Amino acid sequence: MKTVLLAGFAPFNGESLNPAWEAVAMLQGYADATFRVESRQLPCAFGSARQILSDFVKELSPALVVVVGQAGGRPDITIERVAINVDDAPIKDNAGQQPIDQVIAEDGPAAYFATLPLKSIVCALRELGIPASVSQSAGTFVCNHVFYGLMHFLATQMPNSRIGAGFIHIPYLPAQAANRPGAPSMALDTVVMGLQCAIQVALSTSEDRKEAGGTTH
Amino acid sequence: MKTVLLAGFAPFNGESLNPAWEAVAMLQGYADATFRVESRQLPCAFGSARQILSDFVKELSPALVVVVGQAGGRPDITIERVAINVDDAPIKDNAGQQPIDQVIAEDGPAAYFATLPLKSIVCALRELGIPASVSQSAGTFVCNHVFYGLMHFLATQMPNSRIGAGFIHIPYLPAQAANRPGAPSMALDTVVMGLQCAIQVALSTSEDRKEAGGTTH
Amino acid sequence: MKTVLLAGFAPFNGESLNPAWEAVAMLQGYADATFRVESRQLPCAFGSARQILSDFVKELSPALVVVVGQAGGRPDITIERVAINVDDAPIKDNAGQQPIDQVIAEDGPAAYFATLPLKSIVCALRELGIPASVSQSAGTFVCNHVFYGLMHFLATQMPNSRIGAGFIHIPYLPAQAANRPGAPSMALDTVVMGLQCAIQVALSTSEDRKEAGGTTH
Amino acid sequence: MKTVLLAGFAPFNGESLNPAWEAVAMLQGYADATFRVESRQLPCAFGSARQILSDFVKELSPALVVVVGQAGGRPDITIERVAINVDDAPIKDNAGQQPIDQVIAEDGPAAYFATLPLKSIVCALRELGIPASVSQSAGTFVCNHVFYGLMHFLATQMPNSRIGAGFIHIPYLPAQAANRPGAPSMALDTVVMGLQCAIQVALSTSEDRKEAGGTTH
Repeated sequence: MKTVLLAGFAPFNGESLNPAWEAVAMLQGYADATFRVESRQLPCAFGSARQILSDFVKELSPALVVVVGQAGGRPDITIERVAINVDDAPIKDNAGQQPIDQVIAEDGPAAYFATLPLKSIVCALRELGIPASVSQSAGTFVCNHVFYGLMHFLATQMPNSRIGAGFIHIPYLPAQAANRPGAPSMALDTVVMGLQCAIQVALSTSEDRKEAGGTTH
Repeated sequence: MKTVLLAGFAPFNGESLNPAWEAVAMLQGYADATFRVESRQLPCAFGSARQILSDFVKELSPALVVVVGQAGGRPDITIERVAINVDDAPIKDNAGQQPIDQVIAEDGPAAYFATLPLKSIVCALRELGIPASVSQSAGTFVCNHVFYGLMHFLATQMPNSRIGAGFIHIPYLPAQAANRPGAPSMALDTVVMGLQCAIQVALSTSEDRKEAGGTTH
Repeated sequence: MKTVLLAGFAPFNGESLNPAWEAVAMLQGYADATFRVESRQLPCAFGSARQILSDFVKELSPALVVVVGQAGGRPDITIERVAINVDDAPIKDNAGQQPIDQVIAEDGPAAYFATLPLKSIVCALRELGIPASVSQSAGTFVCNHVFYGLMHFLATQMPNSRIGAGFIHIPYLPAQAANRPGAPSMALDTVVMGLQCAIQVALSTSEDRKEAGGTTH
Repeated sequence: MKTVLLAGFAPFNGESLNPAWEAVAMLQGYADATFRVESRQLPCAFGSARQILSDFVKELSPALVVVVGQAGGRPDITIERVAINVDDAPIKDNAGQQPIDQVIAEDGPAAYFATLPLKSIVCALRELGIPASVSQSAGTFVCNHVFYGLMHFLATQMPNSRIGAGFIHIPYLPAQAANRPGAPSMALDTVVMGLQCAIQVALSTSEDRKEAGGTTH
């Protein structure tokens, strides 16, 4: 039985909820004959979020780690391709921190690529009728920080493991967009179904599909 | 018992479905102690759609008429404020027609305003957690054509009636947006719940709320 | 010698400049053998702006009246198709007024169409390499108010005149967009050249081109 | 006298011009007492563009290398933060190649950061009234390929040099946007002025400003 660690962020920037955590919480215990999901919440704070996630990985020995965050303004579920070694916060995190152009890991590489089968997940989501795409940037806030931190932890502390790991951004919920005229949204059920699909594809895919998923700029 | 005529368009522009009709069809028979919905499909064709809608009004003697159309690319449910007396089609309709700058009714005014309580509907939708706004233009294609035609029919053929009438645009469904990277969408359940809310508010509101719902341009 | 009345708004909403007035002011005296432009500033205020524009029309007896306003967020020069008989202000005007769902002219029709050759202007601008399109809504703020007021004045006070009249919206200047990350802009030279082109086309076109310029919604 | 190598791409994707090359060509010989610009064109082709740029660096021994590319759809001048080690082409390049998820340099790191003072350039551009921002992704097409290739060449072939190097994306020209309704644009003069400013800031800044320039996602 494989364990899937599914982590979602707590609300931030004054919000009362975070759709990432709402969706992740609903998937606690989601399982089939081969895997079981353990859902965990992360604080929206530089440093501590990364540390806590590493502790969860050590505790749970998962076969797959997927972190989920809110990308307010995006219309679809986006599978992140790459995490970069820089914090550059446009707003304060929940601990009041706002690092600018700071390295995440002094000894780390400039970036890590997700080890999820990005294209296979996007194709499967679209076939299910769920809007999805590959994203070339997870930003420079806590989401990218945790994503980079996760990949760096796996690369340096568990170098021989073959744990699949990556980051998925989701849109606002409709109730959030109702207060932000012009913002796109996605129903919670759709997000949950999308995450279930992504987990199944990630666990069952040994080699990613060769489908274009890039951008000209 | 009041009858609500809810009309939705057939698929157009090569689509295999129209979310407007999907939602409208699900509401056939929706009722409470005071009203009952009759759902009808309209062809996406200049002229015939307008004529058929007028026939439905004559047949059903509704207290409220709401026409629903797809606004691909919009992120929220939009309550249309005004229909203008011009056809200017950017694409062909289902009958192969593409009128350019043609008057809809030679003897008609330049425009008609919806007689729905726009602001009350938008407020109620947002309170329900459904993204919604007032739209200042229903375009110049079959949606505007039918909306104008409806209001002109009511004004000229049933001038003493007090039938509430208007037009609501809805986003793509997720399954449509899955094939159009970057397009926002809304789940069918959310749209259906939104239309139920709009109908109830329209039937129960005698004077619209004074809430800003305009735009600077 | 025909007179062209070109009116542009004063800054509003706390801005230090309005690109509409910047462009209009540069065109004072613009002329050829057949016409001469008189540029005038309008206050951004419901009521007074409309009254002052009517006074300018009476004073100057123009053959063509074009009002120019800022449409922050639009990427191109937009030629407005229609003015509607409603004020619904999302922000306060310069006089502190914020009317909601108020009729502009109690005795007026629901809307007036511009009497400019919209399609010919858009085609000519694009041929010049200037982004342009027809707009189906001038909003519900002071721009629409003045546009409607102008058309109503001409229709009721000068019913036998054949004065061409309409409204053109322009984007932010680059210097404005520099403070609004994500906002498109247009250089002042491009706007001025576009207005010159629009004036020439409006004066020289007796029948508009039949080119699609509408929208599906 | 320092040499600045300014490289711009040839037209691609069936376009008859590339604003990047138009702007770069106008800056050939741009100079002051301390520097002089050498402008060079790059083909829009994976592999050869990267090789040719390396040859230009060897030939010219520049103190600063800035590559300029078109980012159709962006409204402002964007200073790229990072190049990633992957080609994933959504369209074919000018040589008919469309690599998918291919590594650029087998022996290279996952990414390189630009060595331009990103924040200082953005601030200086905005102070000049030119819309600008930091971009977190240069895409996965030839622009990113050349940007990555440049940084990898400098890191591996000239490891002790202190050559500043980076990539700047620019919007469509107005004449391009005139054929793409809804697309933002920027006048060539504005782009040229922006590149002059960026060059001067890059040459004169020893330590970048600490200004937030990141994104939440």
